[in-house]
Amino acid sequence: MRIRNKPWADDFIKEHDHIVEPSPYAQKGSWRQLFQKEQPIHLEIGTGKGQFIAKMARNHPDINFIGIERVKSVIVGAIKKVKEEDVVNVRLLNVNAENLCELFADDEIDRIYLNFSDPWPKKRHAKRRLTYHTFLKQYQQILKPEGEIVLKTDNQQFFEFSLVSFSQFGMVLDEVTLDLHQLKDPENVMTEYEEKFSEKGNPIYRCKAHVPASR
Amino acid sequence: MRIRNKPWADDFIKEHDHIVEPSPYAQKGSWRQLFQKEQPIHLEIGTGKGQFIAKMARNHPDINFIGIERVKSVIVGAIKKVKEEDVVNVRLLNVNAENLCELFADDEIDRIYLNFSDPWPKKRHAKRRLTYHTFLKQYQQILKPEGEIVLKTDNQQFFEFSLVSFSQFGMVLDEVTLDLHQLKDPENVMTEYEEKFSEKGNPIYRCKAHVPASR
Ligand SMILES: C[S@@+](CC[C@H](N)C(=O)[O-])C[C@H]1O[C@@H](n2cnc3c(N)ncnc32)[C@H](O)[C@@H]1O
Ligand SMILES: C[S@@+](CC[C@H](N)C(=O)[O-])C[C@H]1O[C@@H](n2cnc3c(N)ncnc32)[C@H](O)[C@@H]1O
Repeated sequence: MRIRNKPWADDFIKEHDHIVEPSPYAQKGSWRQLFQKEQPIHLEIGTGKGQFIAKMARNHPDINFIGIERVKSVIVGAIKKVKEEDVVNVRLLNVNAENLCELFADDEIDRIYLNFSDPWPKKRHAKRRLTYHTFLKQYQQILKPEGEIVLKTDNQQFFEFSLVSFSQFGMVLDEVTLDLHQLKDPENVMTEYEEKFSEKGNPIYRCKAHVPASR
Repeated sequence: MRIRNKPWADDFIKEHDHIVEPSPYAQKGSWRQLFQKEQPIHLEIGTGKGQFIAKMARNHPDINFIGIERVKSVIVGAIKKVKEEDVVNVRLLNVNAENLCELFADDEIDRIYLNFSDPWPKKRHAKRRLTYHTFLKQYQQILKPEGEIVLKTDNQQFFEFSLVSFSQFGMVLDEVTLDLHQLKDPENVMTEYEEKFSEKGNPIYRCKAHVPASR
């Protein structure tokens, strides 16, 4: 187990229980009340080292952010970023995003961000992609009606797969861009991977999708 | 009028009335019987100089092809290609594709091809794009249930627009590829524009979409 190998990470996480929620499954249905202000909740899955969520929280004090990151040695970086930005509207969850319906009640989430999710390029690993239909089923359940999913990636095959997967599931695309940085969207906050891959010259893809309320 | 300026094109078209249907609106509802063999009909809108439709007709003798091209001096090239390939399963229509429902009965078409359609990049020209919702409405009507639209383009903005437009209309994406030639699809038949733009190094985009039968 990772904990045994990195006791420092485990301790660091425990010391920051105002940032990393210690018993996340117990909060199901009452996330809204957990934060200082009751306001919409945006969920990032696979938060990594937290640059995105920390800056977004700083830019959007009217939103509460929850970031899920399963790797302890990685979430430690996110804790540091949240402290640096000195924001109160972020909670990090050190769990696997596989059972979202046990973490969140129906309609509890207003938006989901998927940033540079692991692409799992091999066909036999398709089920692990965070846009596989079993994940979409969970997103649909925890998202409020018309709640949006915003996805960014530099991985062409993962992007192609995700567009088709969203559509086949019955979601509606609200935006597709094949070169996000060309758009010069002033609201865009770069993630660590986004900085790394765009420096290499890779185009960054983004799409936005929602589940129609009638479903 | 173009006819006055290019009487040779007008004459050439009239001489080939077994290829260019002289009274297309009169055929509404009876296109199936017009061909030698009664079989599915695939419609290409904006056929250009006809390389695609002529080769497709040669490769797929079990399909009847109809190509719409409004410019006389361009459709002349398509006539020549059809003669070169010596195929009997093609009809060309020298009309504007704006009133498809007057040309085709409900469910008369099995598939629609949009190849390198004019992108009309300016926002105020969006209505002219062949994937604007008013066109999709017509495609939905003339396509049989579950009938597919297959779109190819090298134009990034037109592709982005089309994916969102299909989705917002309620169509479902069956395929999205951001680099068709990388796929090495042995079934792919290149159009004139496809050859020109891929030689320049542009990636070729393709998507396939259908209207769900329940709509
Ligand atoms: C490729 S990284 C991207 C990190 C960050 N979003 C960025 O854009 O820089 C993907 C991250 O997602 C995390 N992750 C992947 N699958 C996960 C899951 N099922 N539950 C929680 N975290 C996951 C990984 O541990 C990794 O830190
Ligand atoms: C950019 S060219 C592409 C030609 C060919 N499909 C190719 O890929 O090489 C577009 C063609 O569509 C035709 N076209 C555009 N709008 C049309 C319409 N509304 N009705 C009929 N033809 C149209 C134009 O005249 C032109 O020949």
